[in-house]
Amino acid sequence: MTTVAIIGASGYSGAELVRLLARRADVRLTHLIASSSAGKRFDDMYPAMTGITDIILEPLDYGRLQDTDIAFVALPSGEGMKVVPELLRTVPKVIDLGGDFRLPNVRLYEEFYNHTHLAPSLLTCARYGLPELNRKTIRDARLVANPGCYSTSAILALYPAVASGIISENHIVVNSLSGISGAGRSAKQEMSFTELNENAKAYKIGTHQHTPEMEWALESATSKKVQLSFVPHLIPITRGIYTTIHADLCQNLSSEEVIALYRSYYSNEPFVRVRDQAPQIKHVVQTNYCDIHVVVDARTNQLIITSVIDNLIKGAAGQAIQNLNIMLGVPEQTGLI
Amino acid sequence: MTTVAIIGASGYSGAELVRLLARRADVRLTHLIASSSAGKRFDDMYPAMTGITDIILEPLDYGRLQDTDIAFVALPSGEGMKVVPELLRTVPKVIDLGGDFRLPNVRLYEEFYNHTHLAPSLLTCARYGLPELNRKTIRDARLVANPGCYSTSAILALYPAVASGIISENHIVVNSLSGISGAGRSAKQEMSFTELNENAKAYKIGTHQHTPEMEWALESATSKKVQLSFVPHLIPITRGIYTTIHADLCQNLSSEEVIALYRSYYSNEPFVRVRDQAPQIKHVVQTNYCDIHVVVDARTNQLIITSVIDNLIKGAAGQAIQNLNIMLGVPEQTGLI
Amino acid sequence: MTTVAIIGASGYSGAELVRLLARRADVRLTHLIASSSAGKRFDDMYPAMTGITDIILEPLDYGRLQDTDIAFVALPSGEGMKVVPELLRTVPKVIDLGGDFRLPNVRLYEEFYNHTHLAPSLLTCARYGLPELNRKTIRDARLVANPGCYSTSAILALYPAVASGIISENHIVVNSLSGISGAGRSAKQEMSFTELNENAKAYKIGTHQHTPEMEWALESATSKKVQLSFVPHLIPITRGIYTTIHADLCQNLSSEEVIALYRSYYSNEPFVRVRDQAPQIKHVVQTNYCDIHVVVDARTNQLIITSVIDNLIKGAAGQAIQNLNIMLGVPEQTGLI
Amino acid sequence: MTTVAIIGASGYSGAELVRLLARRADVRLTHLIASSSAGKRFDDMYPAMTGITDIILEPLDYGRLQDTDIAFVALPSGEGMKVVPELLRTVPKVIDLGGDFRLPNVRLYEEFYNHTHLAPSLLTCARYGLPELNRKTIRDARLVANPGCYSTSAILALYPAVASGIISENHIVVNSLSGISGAGRSAKQEMSFTELNENAKAYKIGTHQHTPEMEWALESATSKKVQLSFVPHLIPITRGIYTTIHADLCQNLSSEEVIALYRSYYSNEPFVRVRDQAPQIKHVVQTNYCDIHVVVDARTNQLIITSVIDNLIKGAAGQAIQNLNIMLGVPEQTGLI
Repeated sequence: MTTVAIIGASGYSGAELVRLLARRADVRLTHLIASSSAGKRFDDMYPAMTGITDIILEPLDYGRLQDTDIAFVALPSGEGMKVVPELLRTVPKVIDLGGDFRLPNVRLYEEFYNHTHLAPSLLTCARYGLPELNRKTIRDARLVANPGCYSTSAILALYPAVASGIISENHIVVNSLSGISGAGRSAKQEMSFTELNENAKAYKIGTHQHTPEMEWALESATSKKVQLSFVPHLIPITRGIYTTIHADLCQNLSSEEVIALYRSYYSNEPFVRVRDQAPQIKHVVQTNYCDIHVVVDARTNQLIITSVIDNLIKGAAGQAIQNLNIMLGVPEQTGLI
Repeated sequence: MTTVAIIGASGYSGAELVRLLARRADVRLTHLIASSSAGKRFDDMYPAMTGITDIILEPLDYGRLQDTDIAFVALPSGEGMKVVPELLRTVPKVIDLGGDFRLPNVRLYEEFYNHTHLAPSLLTCARYGLPELNRKTIRDARLVANPGCYSTSAILALYPAVASGIISENHIVVNSLSGISGAGRSAKQEMSFTELNENAKAYKIGTHQHTPEMEWALESATSKKVQLSFVPHLIPITRGIYTTIHADLCQNLSSEEVIALYRSYYSNEPFVRVRDQAPQIKHVVQTNYCDIHVVVDARTNQLIITSVIDNLIKGAAGQAIQNLNIMLGVPEQTGLI
Repeated sequence: MTTVAIIGASGYSGAELVRLLARRADVRLTHLIASSSAGKRFDDMYPAMTGITDIILEPLDYGRLQDTDIAFVALPSGEGMKVVPELLRTVPKVIDLGGDFRLPNVRLYEEFYNHTHLAPSLLTCARYGLPELNRKTIRDARLVANPGCYSTSAILALYPAVASGIISENHIVVNSLSGISGAGRSAKQEMSFTELNENAKAYKIGTHQHTPEMEWALESATSKKVQLSFVPHLIPITRGIYTTIHADLCQNLSSEEVIALYRSYYSNEPFVRVRDQAPQIKHVVQTNYCDIHVVVDARTNQLIITSVIDNLIKGAAGQAIQNLNIMLGVPEQTGLI
Repeated sequence: MTTVAIIGASGYSGAELVRLLARRADVRLTHLIASSSAGKRFDDMYPAMTGITDIILEPLDYGRLQDTDIAFVALPSGEGMKVVPELLRTVPKVIDLGGDFRLPNVRLYEEFYNHTHLAPSLLTCARYGLPELNRKTIRDARLVANPGCYSTSAILALYPAVASGIISENHIVVNSLSGISGAGRSAKQEMSFTELNENAKAYKIGTHQHTPEMEWALESATSKKVQLSFVPHLIPITRGIYTTIHADLCQNLSSEEVIALYRSYYSNEPFVRVRDQAPQIKHVVQTNYCDIHVVVDARTNQLIITSVIDNLIKGAAGQAIQNLNIMLGVPEQTGLI
């Protein structure tokens, strides 16, 4: 029986971890930490869970975590780095769902996150937790940096094309649409239903913090210098990410040939489905799947890749559990199908 | 008093024309044509209009249209070309909201619309009805081809950059998000609420018929050879289009400089607003405005342009009325503010 | 030219007043008051209005309001009574869109609003601003209490049945569904898109403050003792109220007979449409109409009434402008069609 | 290993059965029948299921069903009665998710369903499949009539109050809000996104076919004559039903006392949760739970009951599987938590 703590259990990603882990027989949720809601029952905050769990939220007390095998950190970026160093002294393994340990150096982090990094020495020992690219290094990692939601959809969509050298890797355009749950659980006027319903908007155009993460993860996996321009958009759905990518083709290829190439790269992946048609968010919501489709636009000699994930599952809690499974040596699908 | 007929008054664009024109004192709706619903009252199909109009829908009978000064054709592409030739023999001026007369030649039309053109001789006499580029030729046209919804948002977003030569005009990426009303009013399982709600999907990737329209309209206006790759997406909103464009910058420019350039191009336009921030669909819904914003992504040396319109107004009925106003010699805002 | 001030111009009802009044030639918006946003341009808060108004929001300074003929107060209930007494010393006429002056006495107010009334002496001089029932007393009122949104939809739906005595007026069940804009413009976690989308919930079951308002308005107009049980629900739409009412019939009547009765009561009303079929919110959104339908359930001998309004227009700003028109002696539809 | 066939596997309820049963180890899906789509792969119609099932849809051929232990019939009302008689000759047990076998006699059926019943002799042998009321008779039934979605939410909400005699059982008002998936999977213009989004509407006011089902199920379980007036509404969500009920209280009781009464009735039910606050659809979506809350409106002496379910799960496929579990003698939660 693996004992698990979740730091930040009251946010959407943390709650999704609780939901997915509560039904497993081989894992025990020992501590749900949520400083601002400590003392409340988890199912009072998430009444959907009444009858499934009666755990009470706790304040963060490292001393009490000594019975914990693995801790998930589901805090906003900037908050994770405040607790991870101390956590690693108490708990054997940590999976951080935030952005604090995904980038390779402090310079890049501070440029895109706009604040000082408080635990720079951990940047080199964290392993980037995208199983399809890095499952070998994840297995024995002490600290896993779980990928960003946009990054997951873009990296999986681009990896076969970049690795096989069929596109110009330094001139890529990435556009993503995200459901609103990606913005987290907080009281903001601009996140109200009335503001977002029947609306859509781009934000952080060219400056979103997942941009260097996409570039770096692809560079690490392919040893090529990747450069891309990324624009995220919010659309009025609760869950899901839709990513559409344009890249210049370096070879004459048909759509069918590129689909075949993608199928060969992902043939053994339990959570990647290469599609014959444009994917739809609805096909992956509530699952850990990433669906990908590829089209060659012969007129303009571009490769157009589309991919979809559930931002809270493959883009956060599901992928974190996939990483947990790798660390535990159990099948990656455990608890996720 | 100008007398107006609407051919195709029962679809969403036709009904929007009725709604916008019914409140004008200088225009009289003399004939609402809708073959499949002839005999019904318009306000029985659109109960929102009860008390505002009691017009009865008619079958198409060219003889009865002799009292008509201007006819709007709001039929699906492929249907407009069946009625426009005969219509032009009866009615002095025709504004076609469909796609049949927007492209310069039969080859391009048949490649992207996948059917034979039935009135090819009219292609050269139709005028492309985007007032911001072509208001002089619209004024005296007998046949105006009202622009496509996606095209309107993309052309207005690109025109200043292409015309001023600050971007590579042959390597442009256009992504658009559309509300569902753009798909028209018909009974299709894939247009049902259950299929589209909480969903998003790309379609006609690289092959949408508005692609050559965007290229051709920009080429005509700037005398440059434009090439772009276009991907439309459906998102779960009723009205609105969001367009995000990436293009390679040819010069070192700041975002502020490009915004200033755009403001100079559009300084006299009543329906274009150049914004300091990313636009939102909600700011233009139910209006004839097109809001545009521009960002320079200095890392990748790309210009990123975002624009929004209401697909049924600036993208269809509103723009058609703007064209009507030009033809009538009244202020373009008449009935649209 | 009538000069108008709006106290609370930054909320949804206040902004709707600005939008509707800005296009009128016979009214001049002289002061937009919004304490928390004073100094900002109104169109920076509501970018949809860029190009239509460039007014700057002001703090509340009674001295500056001496040029004002009529002031609208669009503040939350509990706030209006803090400013109305002083306002009435400066401005000839006041229309309060909040709930502070709608009930006949302090006891009822304090029971349902749960706080002390600060201006009890004004309760008797305020006139209830539902034009269909009270247009004569509205004309010369100094203080008009604009009806609540739920109340408007329920009172108009019930009035003919209560007045004509065809139902038991002391055993009525009212259920309403409201769009989220009715909850106002503020940063609350429970009003976020993620919480409300794909959801519905009842609230304030049997205790909502519009309950005594409905009873009292009907009693005043019919001299009958009315008792009803009211349950409001939030559903995931931006605008609109759907009200469904059950009442015990006292006579044997067919649906058609009751519809005819309703038509006779409302035959001269410009904003009430009695329908042959169940109304839909979509038919009244963005309008000042109230659509009503009536069915006799002969099995259970009940009258079932359904009605719809746009909560921000007939349920707030539109009705306030209808009251303004009555006070000014211009047609009630002015600026509302 | 129980072998299962689903007749009507391509509709929403049928597909939900496939989704829920595909993950069970003790059940094998042997036949997915869908006449109009026979020959297609199920996961081509429901791409979310790619990788989970590769079953091919079959035409209905009774001969091939001889290996089947239990057949689910997920056809529209009126279609089920065409296949159930023959099916019962081949398959030991049948669970019909449609409405054809829920009512006690032909008269009531034909009054509310508006067509002739084709298998009246089966009406008396069918057992009404609401486990909370009838689990004993379900166990050995050959034909189970799975309850309607609205009926499930209303009967569970009313049962303790009617059974205990605290309300007048012949004067009940039931209002329900339903997600659009309840209308089934078909191409209808009035079910399109553009028609339903930002809208709400009542339909079949006082005449919906679930009305006599609610009355009859409560009468059978309590031996009291129940009469209620029912109004269903469509709201723009995909899944979920919200039911709000008003009934006259016969005794002086507090809300807390009635909640305690409800808790005692449902204390052993795995899928009923009695809540301290108004339920929300979001708390039960994707689950087999029914959440119920009760309020005493002391002013009007009414009991106000609110309940929520997922219409496709507790209102259809989930409840059918709960019935399957009862028939198989396994815990009712099997495959449903």
